[in-house]
Amino acid sequence: MKMRRLDSTTVGFDAELVRLTSFDSALDEQVETVVRSILQDVRKRGDEALLEYTQRFDRLVVAQAELLELPGDVLTRALEELPQSQRRALEKAAERIRAFHEHQRMESWSVREADGTELGQRVTPLDRVGLYVPGGKAVYPSSVLMNAIPAAVAGVQDILMVVPTPEGVRNELVLAAAALSGVRRVFTVGGAQAIAALAYGTATIPAVDKIVGPGNAYVAAAKRQVFGVVGIDMVAGPSEILIIADGSTDPRWVAMDLFSQAEHDELAQALLLCPDPNYLEQVEQAIVALLPTLPRQAVIEKSLADRGALIRVRDLAEACHLSNRIAPEHLELSVAQPEDCLPLLRHAGAIFAGRYSSESLGDYCAGPNHVLPTGRTARFASPLGVYDFQKRSSVLKVSREGARHLGEIAEVLALQEGLHAHARSAACRFRNEV
Amino acid sequence: MKMRRLDSTTVGFDAELVRLTSFDSALDEQVETVVRSILQDVRKRGDEALLEYTQRFDRLVVAQAELLELPGDVLTRALEELPQSQRRALEKAAERIRAFHEHQRMESWSVREADGTELGQRVTPLDRVGLYVPGGKAVYPSSVLMNAIPAAVAGVQDILMVVPTPEGVRNELVLAAAALSGVRRVFTVGGAQAIAALAYGTATIPAVDKIVGPGNAYVAAAKRQVFGVVGIDMVAGPSEILIIADGSTDPRWVAMDLFSQAEHDELAQALLLCPDPNYLEQVEQAIVALLPTLPRQAVIEKSLADRGALIRVRDLAEACHLSNRIAPEHLELSVAQPEDCLPLLRHAGAIFAGRYSSESLGDYCAGPNHVLPTGRTARFASPLGVYDFQKRSSVLKVSREGARHLGEIAEVLALQEGLHAHARSAACRFRNEV
Repeated sequence: MKMRRLDSTTVGFDAELVRLTSFDSALDEQVETVVRSILQDVRKRGDEALLEYTQRFDRLVVAQAELLELPGDVLTRALEELPQSQRRALEKAAERIRAFHEHQRMESWSVREADGTELGQRVTPLDRVGLYVPGGKAVYPSSVLMNAIPAAVAGVQDILMVVPTPEGVRNELVLAAAALSGVRRVFTVGGAQAIAALAYGTATIPAVDKIVGPGNAYVAAAKRQVFGVVGIDMVAGPSEILIIADGSTDPRWVAMDLFSQAEHDELAQALLLCPDPNYLEQVEQAIVALLPTLPRQAVIEKSLADRGALIRVRDLAEACHLSNRIAPEHLELSVAQPEDCLPLLRHAGAIFAGRYSSESLGDYCAGPNHVLPTGRTARFASPLGVYDFQKRSSVLKVSREGARHLGEIAEVLALQEGLHAHARSAACRFRNEV
Repeated sequence: MKMRRLDSTTVGFDAELVRLTSFDSALDEQVETVVRSILQDVRKRGDEALLEYTQRFDRLVVAQAELLELPGDVLTRALEELPQSQRRALEKAAERIRAFHEHQRMESWSVREADGTELGQRVTPLDRVGLYVPGGKAVYPSSVLMNAIPAAVAGVQDILMVVPTPEGVRNELVLAAAALSGVRRVFTVGGAQAIAALAYGTATIPAVDKIVGPGNAYVAAAKRQVFGVVGIDMVAGPSEILIIADGSTDPRWVAMDLFSQAEHDELAQALLLCPDPNYLEQVEQAIVALLPTLPRQAVIEKSLADRGALIRVRDLAEACHLSNRIAPEHLELSVAQPEDCLPLLRHAGAIFAGRYSSESLGDYCAGPNHVLPTGRTARFASPLGVYDFQKRSSVLKVSREGARHLGEIAEVLALQEGLHAHARSAACRFRNEV
């Protein structure tokens, strides 16, 4: 294992960094077309189409659509049958995630003006949301907690979950996590057909207002295509970590943090920025020494080789500057004084400050959400949160006197824009004429 | 002019209402393809392509790309040369919009736990945003105020505006509004090529982090296609109003409110719900009487005929229930006691409570934003606001003791998910082994 080395003082560094951190998730036309036809079909034929696709893609034959829904006691049983240590860990994580997200709840507000006019915004939860959970190999109960708990905290009444069960094989961990997170109903469907059912509704699966949760390329394409009919969360790209180190952290810890990103996926990106070339050397040695001890060695090695880098920077300030350009999903400040860096940082999904703050704590149980903006979208996007399951309505209650004050302004501006009905609609409220 | 009449007590009402309020904005494949090629071209050839498209679509020949930028004094001059009454109205509107949006600024927060661990979220503004303003006939200075002021209140340093100037014709009102709203630079480009320039950047126009503002089908398609590279606001559908009346408002006022929606666009939708059939009759008479007095009579008539309706409901509670299903962009409660309705309402972009609260006041100057979710998206989306120009980063500062508490949980869950590097990254912080 030889890690890529970059140096910010060399000619061509900027271009190299851009090339390394670019990830062009070009749309796959074939996937788009397949997905479009599945969506249309489920929209038109409902449960009938849903059953057919489930049979074809998940090799699961179900006699009637109602049997796609799991009985409620399946969830509670899954939780009760977990080994005690696992159940306790899941419960503690759920509790901490809930406590953190309680701080995010938005509140309605209103102000009253001198003439009696009241203006404000009302905050209400979404009625019903759908959580997509992948089936098969990647088993992520933590993802259920991170997606469902914010919706529950927001006050969403109806949290539905869809999860494919290929050949009927259920994932008990995922069901146990659902039981803990406020999920109300679970349907054993997946793929674009599940997204279609959630977006348009079928006789069995009611239409939702927003769909969240990770999925494969088909699921991602389906979410993009139904966006507008329903809300969606961000479509996630490969996961990323950027570590800024001052050389004071055990290099083996940093190596393990890079691994924990790289083990997700061969496309995942793990970068280390440090002013001290000796420290970069030590981390590389730790990488070489520790890599063979990890079950997912092959994935880690490919991810680090293709997309990883150890980057020597002039100083920590430059590291922060580069990090702002990259806007990483996860940013670790593995430095003695993270307070010095924080004011310099503008864009990151989550910032892990200080050497004890490993990303893995945030992935599972610290409390903040692990659904974070990837691919430089932290420049404009936020972690998934309670605010994604609430929405605002502006409320205007204009007094009789206010109708004159405001109407006089509105009339001038409406006429300026050539919208005479707007002008007269405002004016009739304070003039004796319509 | 004969208005469509519906009655909630008749058989088939539900289906008819669904048909009337559905608007399927199917993607136009040809537009998508044209836009895709323009985006790629500007991305590749930058200013050169931008100048060519500007010449072709806006019939505007510019010798070099820098001349696409308007000198800063053009804006201030446009403001100074406005007639006094118009300038005052624009300034008052800007002031009120700013004051309302000040209430929306999100704040950072952080909590400290017993073991010294600190968790929270930092809120930062976007660095740079681009505001698209249509050129040509539809001249909407109010749209500049509504899009730019929230960005300015959020603390966005760099607010750029693009506005096409076909054949070099500038709109002084739009420039005056830009001068009042904190817009820093203006480029006279439009169409998909302007969106491409904002998303990817050229030598002249810097890349932005988010693009907002209305536009035609090409602009909308371009925004959709660059979403992910940059953030975008919602792609708006036809504008809508739903009025709930108890019969206590002058029917001519209500007629004028329906007109003010319908005059926007032949696809706009204006609905009136009332339990009193006599009142519906009176409103229809007012419509017939007033329609010929309006300059945009033809547009209004087509909009009302195609998509409008006077709907008799059982009572106000049923009207609220139907309104929740429709989730209108604008909802007027033209009733004596709006307080009775408000608790029943869950989904609407903006609620205008009481007979003095005409939508037109909200369109221009009351303070709340007039960029609102359309096409039932108020079920999950909110008015444009300061919060759209800010984003959050989670911050985790885990103490040494916290690394043990949290690490023990994370280790169990990571092993459960088969992610061993995650488990060891957590565990090495509290065990004497890596």
